[in-house]
Amino acid sequence: DFHIDWDASAAEKGGYDYFMLKEIAEQPQAVAETLIGRLTEAGEIALDEVRITDQDLRDIDKIFIVACGTAYHAGMVAKYAIEHWTRIPCEVELASEFRYRDPVLDRSTLLVAISQSGETMDTLMALRHAKEQKARVLAICNTNGSTIPRESDGVLYTHAGPEIAVASTKAFLTQLVACYLVGLHLAQVRGIKYADEVGAVVAQLQAMPSKVEEVLTTMEPVRELARELANSRSVLFIGRHVGYPVALEGALKLKELAYMHAEGFAAGELKHGPIALIDEGTPVVCVVPSPAGRGVLHDKIVSNIQEIRARGARTIVIAEEGDDAVLPYADDLVRVPRTPTLLAPLVTTVPLQVLACEIAASRGHDVDQPRNLAKSVTVE
Amino acid sequence: DFHIDWDASAAEKGGYDYFMLKEIAEQPQAVAETLIGRLTEAGEIALDEVRITDQDLRDIDKIFIVACGTAYHAGMVAKYAIEHWTRIPCEVELASEFRYRDPVLDRSTLLVAISQSGETMDTLMALRHAKEQKARVLAICNTNGSTIPRESDGVLYTHAGPEIAVASTKAFLTQLVACYLVGLHLAQVRGIKYADEVGAVVAQLQAMPSKVEEVLTTMEPVRELARELANSRSVLFIGRHVGYPVALEGALKLKELAYMHAEGFAAGELKHGPIALIDEGTPVVCVVPSPAGRGVLHDKIVSNIQEIRARGARTIVIAEEGDDAVLPYADDLVRVPRTPTLLAPLVTTVPLQVLACEIAASRGHDVDQPRNLAKSVTVE
Repeated sequence: DFHIDWDASAAEKGGYDYFMLKEIAEQPQAVAETLIGRLTEAGEIALDEVRITDQDLRDIDKIFIVACGTAYHAGMVAKYAIEHWTRIPCEVELASEFRYRDPVLDRSTLLVAISQSGETMDTLMALRHAKEQKARVLAICNTNGSTIPRESDGVLYTHAGPEIAVASTKAFLTQLVACYLVGLHLAQVRGIKYADEVGAVVAQLQAMPSKVEEVLTTMEPVRELARELANSRSVLFIGRHVGYPVALEGALKLKELAYMHAEGFAAGELKHGPIALIDEGTPVVCVVPSPAGRGVLHDKIVSNIQEIRARGARTIVIAEEGDDAVLPYADDLVRVPRTPTLLAPLVTTVPLQVLACEIAASRGHDVDQPRNLAKSVTVE
Repeated sequence: DFHIDWDASAAEKGGYDYFMLKEIAEQPQAVAETLIGRLTEAGEIALDEVRITDQDLRDIDKIFIVACGTAYHAGMVAKYAIEHWTRIPCEVELASEFRYRDPVLDRSTLLVAISQSGETMDTLMALRHAKEQKARVLAICNTNGSTIPRESDGVLYTHAGPEIAVASTKAFLTQLVACYLVGLHLAQVRGIKYADEVGAVVAQLQAMPSKVEEVLTTMEPVRELARELANSRSVLFIGRHVGYPVALEGALKLKELAYMHAEGFAAGELKHGPIALIDEGTPVVCVVPSPAGRGVLHDKIVSNIQEIRARGARTIVIAEEGDDAVLPYADDLVRVPRTPTLLAPLVTTVPLQVLACEIAASRGHDVDQPRNLAKSVTVE
């Protein structure tokens, strides 16, 4: 019963130079569609396929999230959300590493497998390993009826539609949404969140498509910046908390598309080595958390920005509207709308996608078909 | 009662051009000294300070290892060893991230804090956070009487002696040894390993100084290679299992000292993005696990080496003596002595230290005092 619920004609470039640009533009819709029908009349989060009882979910005492590449970054964000909302210990692992070490898991472990294609071989093998250990498995996938969801105990499909460009964009944003929904579902089943509390977060999620849209309408300065940076030797990315995986994702996009040195760091790690890389003019993209979330976190990254700027970095600061503390230290400032702390990656990722796409295009690369890469990695 | 148990005169360069070279050469001794007196007559592992009962250690059901920079890489190796030997779930976190998320920990959590100086601010703050949550804390430090061990429930000192060069080398190797000892101690206290089994691993550890010495005597080709690579735009590093943190550490050393693009990857992640970076002649250092450990792991990395070579990479392969499967795909081959699977980082790290040091020196940098970096990071 393999079936793909989108129209083949939707896979055209629709006026964009690249599928990637089209897919970046489709993100508000993709996020909205992944949310449709998720909140039942009873105020409960609905998965797509559930072959696991609520009691089994209540018995879970450990969560592993396994994924590769961009999906791994979604998993890193999920860890923050799931632990914050459920207090279940949650560990994120590269699927290729998970398989070959001796992970401690049993029948009260939940493994969340994230894969756009649903066919990523390393993730599939990690899933099978977990099932052999009697763990429960929940899949987050974009392709109906693919192998990973078929072999899982529960499934939440992302409704990104077909993603043609090799570098994932809209699939990533919808994976984030799915991760939040899984976290809310777990919190609700386990009695940690009331229906109205879950509903409040879902309402915040439902406000995200228009915020992503707002970001997309303000990207012209980012494209200009990208053209300026096209001949840089390297671009570094720093973040903290949920901004750390965003920094990694921004760097991965640039690596994949522009084949240049692009590396993401936890901002707190800079002083432990990577700051040696910073030279006069080194561009550093700084993903700043909302000052409304945890003040100390915001203050720390502002001081990181000061430090790197004192060493000559060109600071490209992604910060919330109204966050004026960054103004004195931002050589380039990209504003994103205010969002709840945990949901920020849905907006802060977008300028980094645009940046990578435009830098790659300026360097004359085929944005949709980067060298050496395949869309889904169905070999190990 | 602050006291440093080494002689100030030992801190001279002793005929070497750089402290770092001297410290690399001191590694066999540092490893040996960290092992001295660790096995009691009763066949038990001895920590230096124990303010925690064996019963408390038996009650532990979760371990967090927190560290920064190079010490974080030691923690990544520790995770493999501790989970393999004890089956206690073990998570490694950057200290700067650990503090600001909401880690799930309680009185049956053990936090292992690794810091050469014992004063690393982020690690200290993570330790304090854990203690507020009633977790137990065990410190691995190189500086007697420093703050982190003073505030911990148990301490294992590394006996690396004073490390002057900013880039850590011998402290890292002794941190690895300490991590193995902590893993063995936990396994023994919890009744998972008999005294003779612990003794057998200690004997394997005691054989390591002469293996490290053997590596050191064969480094001339690595120095030659380094001089060839001095003008490379970038050097990539790949590994799997305990070779993955070694790859990260090799890249960090090169970043710190040579200020060049140097990035480590889990070999399985290459296909999910980073392989786009590989161009004709890109040097890629491949840390190959022992074929005797887990055959499939070895086979996977051999096929990774083939893949990147097919895309033009210059493969620099670090492999065990007698591992002939790598021969057809190694543009440069660095042999290390055979070692038990988990202990391999004690030998595979050494050529990467020499490589980084020599590349940096060839580029005319001050190896001991890289720009922007301080020896211990006592601010956040």
